[in-house]
Formats: sequence, C-alpha cells, structure tokens
Amino acid sequence: MKARPSVRIAVSSLRHPLLRRFREAWRRGELTEDGCCAVEGQHLLEEAFRSPVEVVALLAPQSAEAQLARFEAANPSAGSGQVGRIRSYVTSDRIFRALAPTETPQGLAALVRLATPPLESALVSRPAALAVALIGLQDPGNLGTILRSLEAFGGAACLLGPDSVSPYNPKAVRASAGSLFRVPVYRGVASDKILDLARRHGLQAVALAPRASLALNQLDLTKPTVFFIGREGSGLPDDLLKQADRVARIPLAAGVESLNAAMAASLALYEAARQRGFKE
Amino acid sequence: MKARPSVRIAVSSLRHPLLRRFREAWRRGELTEDGCCAVEGQHLLEEAFRSPVEVVALLAPQSAEAQLARFEAANPSAGSGQVGRIRSYVTSDRIFRALAPTETPQGLAALVRLATPPLESALVSRPAALAVALIGLQDPGNLGTILRSLEAFGGAACLLGPDSVSPYNPKAVRASAGSLFRVPVYRGVASDKILDLARRHGLQAVALAPRASLALNQLDLTKPTVFFIGREGSGLPDDLLKQADRVARIPLAAGVESLNAAMAASLALYEAARQRGFKE
Repeated sequence: MKARPSVRIAVSSLRHPLLRRFREAWRRGELTEDGCCAVEGQHLLEEAFRSPVEVVALLAPQSAEAQLARFEAANPSAGSGQVGRIRSYVTSDRIFRALAPTETPQGLAALVRLATPPLESALVSRPAALAVALIGLQDPGNLGTILRSLEAFGGAACLLGPDSVSPYNPKAVRASAGSLFRVPVYRGVASDKILDLARRHGLQAVALAPRASLALNQLDLTKPTVFFIGREGSGLPDDLLKQADRVARIPLAAGVESLNAAMAASLALYEAARQRGFKE
Repeated sequence: MKARPSVRIAVSSLRHPLLRRFREAWRRGELTEDGCCAVEGQHLLEEAFRSPVEVVALLAPQSAEAQLARFEAANPSAGSGQVGRIRSYVTSDRIFRALAPTETPQGLAALVRLATPPLESALVSRPAALAVALIGLQDPGNLGTILRSLEAFGGAACLLGPDSVSPYNPKAVRASAGSLFRVPVYRGVASDKILDLARRHGLQAVALAPRASLALNQLDLTKPTVFFIGREGSGLPDDLLKQADRVARIPLAAGVESLNAAMAASLALYEAARQRGFKE
C-alpha cells in the first residue's frame, strides 16, 4: 500500500469542540448534538468504513499514531482530508483514556453519521419484511446482539419503544459488531404506533412470551413479521400481549423458564430465516 | 410461612476461613480448595436451591439480614443448621462489598458443591445425546450463555478444552442463570479425547465454522451430536476442522461474516432440538 501524505490535527484540551463531542456522546450513550455516533476500536472503525455511513472524524492517542497511519492507508477515504472530508485528530494518551468508554481503549475512535431511511420505507423494502420491536429492553449488550442477529437473518428494521436503552450506548455499539451501521434503528416508537404500522403494511405482530401456549415454530413466519420482545425479567406488558396477532414461545426443555431477551430474539429471527429458506 | 428460630454466625475478619474461601474463589474465578462454587445474588441462590447441588453455606451482609431471613423461610433446607447442614453467616457490609465480584452486590451469597456425573455416563444418558465442546472459548459471558442454551435445548454435557475460560468465573456463573447447577461441565478435556469419546459413543462431531460450505440445517441432527465451537475471533484450529465428521455454518445473510460464539452455539442447539421435535 502506497503511503500518502497525512495531515493530523493535534488537540490537547478536553475543551476542544471535537473532544467535547466524543465525551458527551460516550458519557450519555447518545448521539452528539450534530447527530454523530461515537465509535471506539479498530474493528468497529473497519465496519464503519465498509458500511453506508459517513465517517466524520478519526481520533487516536499519540501512542497509536502508527496504527492510525496503517488504518488510513488501508481505507483510502480516511486520513489527510485530501480524499474525502474525514479528518484525523491526535490527542494525548491521557486524554484519550479519560474520554474512552472502555477501561483499556483500543487506540482508534471515530464520529460516524448513520443513514436511516424513513421507517415506512424500511418496512416495505423487501417482499417479506422481518423486523423486531423492543419494548422496554434495558441491557445495551442485548440490544447490540439483537442488531447483529437482525442483520444476520435479513431483518429490515429495529423499532425501539420509548423506554428502551439507547442504541448509541457504547456497549450496544460494541455488541452490534457493526450491524448498527447497516440495520436501521427507530427510537421512541410507541407500541400502539408499531401495531398500527404493522397492520397498515401487512406485517403479522408476533409477541414473544415464555408462557405462551403456541410454539414459535408452529407459526408461518414466511409472512411479513414483526417480533415484539419485552423487557429483561418482566417481559411484554399484558395489553400488548392482547393486541398482538400471535403470542408465541421458544420451545424449551422441561424446567427451563426462559431465555434471555437477546437469545429469544435471535432464535425467533433464525426460525423466520430458516422458514424462508435463508434467502433475504 | 412460619418463622423458624435462626442461628447466624457472625464473621468480622477477612481472615476468617469462610470469607477466605469466597475471596479466593471469586478472585481466581475457580472452585474453592474444597471444591465449592461461590455464588452471588438472590436469583442464583434460588436456582441453586431448586437444583441437584449441595448448598454448603449462606453469607449475607448485615444490611441484608432481613432478606436472608426471608430466603431461609422460603427455602426450608436453608438457615439455622437445624434442618440440614447449611449454615448462615453474616458479615459487615464493608467486608461483603470487598469480597463480592460485582460492583453493586445483591446481598446474598453461597458456597455450592456441584454434582457432576462421570463424563461417559452423561454422554450416554439419553437416547440421542446432545453436547457442546468449547475449544479455547475465552469470554465468561459466552460460556454462561451457552450453558443456559444447552439446558434449554436438552443438552447433556459441556466439554471444555484445556484453554477455555473457567465455568466458575463469576460472570460465567451469572450468565448461566443457574444452568451451571444442572448441566454437567467437564474441564480440560483435549480435542483428541473428545473426538475419541464421540467415536466410541456414536456421536457425530460437528465443527461450526463460518466459512463452511455445508449449512447446519442440512445436517441430520436427530443423531447423537457434539458441536465443536472455537475461540472468539479465531474459531476452531485447522486440525480439528479436518478431524470432525462434519464442518457446518449457520446460514447468514449476504455480507455478514459471523455470529458471536455464544449465538452460534445457541442456534446450533436450537436447530438440533427443533429437528428432534423439541423433545428431550
């Protein structure tokens, strides 16, 4: 790979506007004020570069400058600002550690602007849409895992009820292993609205509940489907169970009460993909 | 529930032999010298009491004495030492926090002796055995999740290669949500030995690899089966892929490289249970 001349912008104060954006985003587990997701770790940065997102800025600590240079060389749109609009910033190791959401930061970080199509177009983008609605999900690792499974099994969209964890929580971003950059996520959509959307676009609403009498594999999941998954521990609210088209459980061995929410969602998505012949 | 007289043993020094056992077990993520697993949190303690394990001791901080009393009342073999051999110990909140593996301990802890049948009898205990062999798995959360799925889908045993994470790591215990108390785990079993056991007992050895040409759902998993799962990131070693009866992948959407190890194992176990009609 040919080395390119590289311009780095040195930032040495936590009050620098760029570092403030990283800090606020990671501390709150939310987007920056201008709508960017803060991302940490080389693997996630590579995922961002192969996804339809806009990488706005790269940030590295001084000790990772060589890693940054290799990364820029391997990703032609990254780096000096000559190719695209991506700028590379370097700060001290101390400041980087103070900012980063992990105890042992991996050396590179980025601000990434996600591209999310309008919700209704995502739901009708494929002949048989597959989506999940997470109502009150709390654990960021579970959310990230569900996004990863959603992509793996051809899901079109993730809808988050008003009380669900933020998909921009650093743990959710990490657990998604890059799927957050490719699967559209819609936040703060109330259950009623989701049920209404499902009806209008011909998706069956399947609520997962461990005590349901119907087994998930007995349903026809080749139809357009949205799976409703509830909060860890307490599950879905009763009124939602009443309003869903179907309430189903993952069949489990005797004596086993439930699976965790991410596992239940992933198995439901696998079962749908299996019935569809694993074709998107 | 009738209140029973209760005897509590107060322990006020980290040098007390009981507290040393908790501390060593949690710090090292291993069994105590006398073969007990240290467990924290009311939910896991309830799981222990409904499992075929021996609860050796209960421990609570002073501020959780009422919680301990309620727990003893609800679990007749717990408590004063009158019914069984279980003794309850109380220590200061400060010492309990210093010992506990979580930042916000939930108030109750126990030492639990697991009952593990001989490996060969576990493999032949059911008409069509289902087992997993984890070769170099590193993440305790993944191990716990796999144990939970193994129980949920009727698995008979979990075999751990020599370099795998300890099942007694507090994060593995927590993620197993009690399945560790019911699914037998065998540590430090080399791949060659597992393959040899599989052959002798008529189990097909199915290695999971994301780049395999064969899709998992094309295999007949109603036969006795052991799934081999590799290390996070690097997967199974090449020589194992050569020696396995089958190498298969979970079918994934275009562009998706792999699932995490716990998810892949759980989906394989689900697929086997599905083919078996979800009967144990």
